[in-house]
Parts: sequence; C-alpha cells; structure tokens
Amino acid sequence: MQANLREHIEKIIALTEEEFAFVYSHFSIKKFKKHQFIIQKGDPVKYSYFVVSGLLKLVHTDTKEKEHIVSFAMEDWWESDYYAFYTQTEATMSLECLEDTEVLCCSYDDYKKLRDGLQKMERFFLEKATFGFLGSQRRIISWQTSNSKERYEQLLKQYPSLFQRVPKSLIASYLGVSRETLSRLSS
Amino acid sequence: MQANLREHIEKIIALTEEEFAFVYSHFSIKKFKKHQFIIQKGDPVKYSYFVVSGLLKLVHTDTKEKEHIVSFAMEDWWESDYYAFYTQTEATMSLECLEDTEVLCCSYDDYKKLRDGLQKMERFFLEKATFGFLGSQRRIISWQTSNSKERYEQLLKQYPSLFQRVPKSLIASYLGVSRETLSRLSS
Repeated sequence: MQANLREHIEKIIALTEEEFAFVYSHFSIKKFKKHQFIIQKGDPVKYSYFVVSGLLKLVHTDTKEKEHIVSFAMEDWWESDYYAFYTQTEATMSLECLEDTEVLCCSYDDYKKLRDGLQKMERFFLEKATFGFLGSQRRIISWQTSNSKERYEQLLKQYPSLFQRVPKSLIASYLGVSRETLSRLSS
Repeated sequence: MQANLREHIEKIIALTEEEFAFVYSHFSIKKFKKHQFIIQKGDPVKYSYFVVSGLLKLVHTDTKEKEHIVSFAMEDWWESDYYAFYTQTEATMSLECLEDTEVLCCSYDDYKKLRDGLQKMERFFLEKATFGFLGSQRRIISWQTSNSKERYEQLLKQYPSLFQRVPKSLIASYLGVSRETLSRLSS
C-alpha cells in the first residue's frame, strides 16, 4: 500500500525516508465493496482518493436522470469530485466502485498541509494538475474531431485493460455513444 | 501592462514590490496584428502567453484539414499549445490573433525559474493548473450532457462579450455545431 503510493509519487519527485513518512502520515486507508458509493451527489467531499487496487466510475447525472461517465479510475489514479473537493462544496457527481476497491484518502486539510509543508509535494501536485489539464484538453479535442468509431479505437489503444474490466454499457456512456452503436463498433 | 499581470497574479497570491519585479523580469512583451499566427503547427513552442489585450483562438486542424477551435483567450487569460510547451515538443495546434493583440511571454526556462525560485509562484501555477483542469472537466460534462442549444446558452451566459467579438462561424466550431445550427439557435 505504502509502496504503491511511494512509487507513484517518485515518478515525479524523489523523497527521503523521512519525507515519505511525513507524506504517508497524511493518508488513511479505506476499503469498499463493488457497487458501494465512495461519494454520493449532495455529500460534502472530504477526500481525494488514490486508488491502490480496484476500479471506480465518476458519474454525472443529468436533469433527465441519465448517467454520464465523466471518468474511470483504476490503480495509480487519483479520483474525486474535484470541483467540490477544491471549493469545499457539495458533490455534484458520484463516485462508485465497479470492483472491490482499496484507496488511500487525503483530506483537503491534509492536502494543504502536504502542499505547504513540503515544496516537493507542491511540485508533485502541480505536475498532476498540469497533466490532468492536458489529458482533459486532449479529450475535448477528441470529441471535436473524432467520430464514435475513432473515439472507441483511441480509448481501446490507450487503456486496453479497461475493456476487460468494464461493461460495454459504461464504455458507451464514457464515449457518449449509444449501447447499440458501441456493439456495432466492437463486433 | 505590468499592472494587468500583477493584478491577475495577486488574485491568488500577494507579492511584495521586490517579488513582483523578480516575476516581471521573466516576461517579454510582444505585439501581434489581427490574423497573425503566434504559434503555427509544427513550430517549437517557446512561450506561454498572458493576454494583456486582444483575442486569440487555439485551433486544432483534423486529418481532413477541418479547423476546430479548442479555446479562445482574451484579456487576463493564459494560452499556448500547452502540451507542446510542457513537453518541449512541436506544436500540434496553432494560435492565431482574432484582433490586434498584446501579450506577455514567458519561456519554458523562465517558467521553471519562477516555479523553482519563488514558492508563491509555484502556488500560483498550481492554482491555475487546478482550475484549468476543472474548467476542462466541466466542458467535457457539457459535451456529454447537453445538446447544441444548451451548450450555446451556457457559453453565452459564461462569456457574453465573446459573442460581440467573435464571428459566429468560430463560435460554431468551438461548440462543435454547424454554422446553420448556430444561426437557428441564435436567431
């Protein structure tokens, strides 16, 4: 558990034993079962979650009660309703387990303590936020420039393991295509 | 010019005179005419640009040579081909002036000097990156959950001045709708 987080952070910054102990002291461990909600719409969003094992879906429900998958998160990913987390407001999305999942949780106060207490961690968060922004921008461009078939193929190429682990109906929701279109694409 | 940048940065962090002088020494001023390219696809991307006055479009051209507006940038916005900027690779997008434009330019080396030399600036960049990510995520959700009419109305509400300054064909490209659909929406 500790090793996963350390390896993940050290892809960006090197930490001494003492520094990592300081970092790790700001996390708590939680385990969830498949289908359990980590965040429900309307909840206060207390934590940012680092996925140690398992798989999550971040879901936005529209005014017609239709679910849209905003993102998936698997091992080594961070996930939360980040708008609510950073602004300390109520969740507008929900975060649900698609498999039994173990996460390391960092509260907003602990995030601030890490960011302020160790400049290396501020660098780490800056890198993650920057590449989070770039990933979202790439996804916007993909919506603008690609049709369903191309978006499906891009996703398959980028995250092949997702297709083994996630029902097709959820892949369709993530890509913004109907279940029928996806069946045609993947057959 | 200095005042614009200082006011912009001080929305997030407070700077002493000396600190701001240090920050400002890492920028250079450039002026461009309407229709001029600041970045062309294939160029090395040397700078991140803070818009002092004017209006820019960031454009992705697809394999069929069709242009898609990834974003607009006006006063107080930062813009660049950020993937190319942060990875120091060649531009895959172009940045073009829709009006005469004045920018403050910060090179990648100077970005790193500011980030490393003044922890307050690392905080500033972290805030900008975080809210850049959140803005992109909101736009993805808008593509997933809203039809053309709703996306048009959201944009009009968020940036009313854009509709005075930008031709409708470009608004259509940003929203991913045809010019004809947009005319119907805005009539």
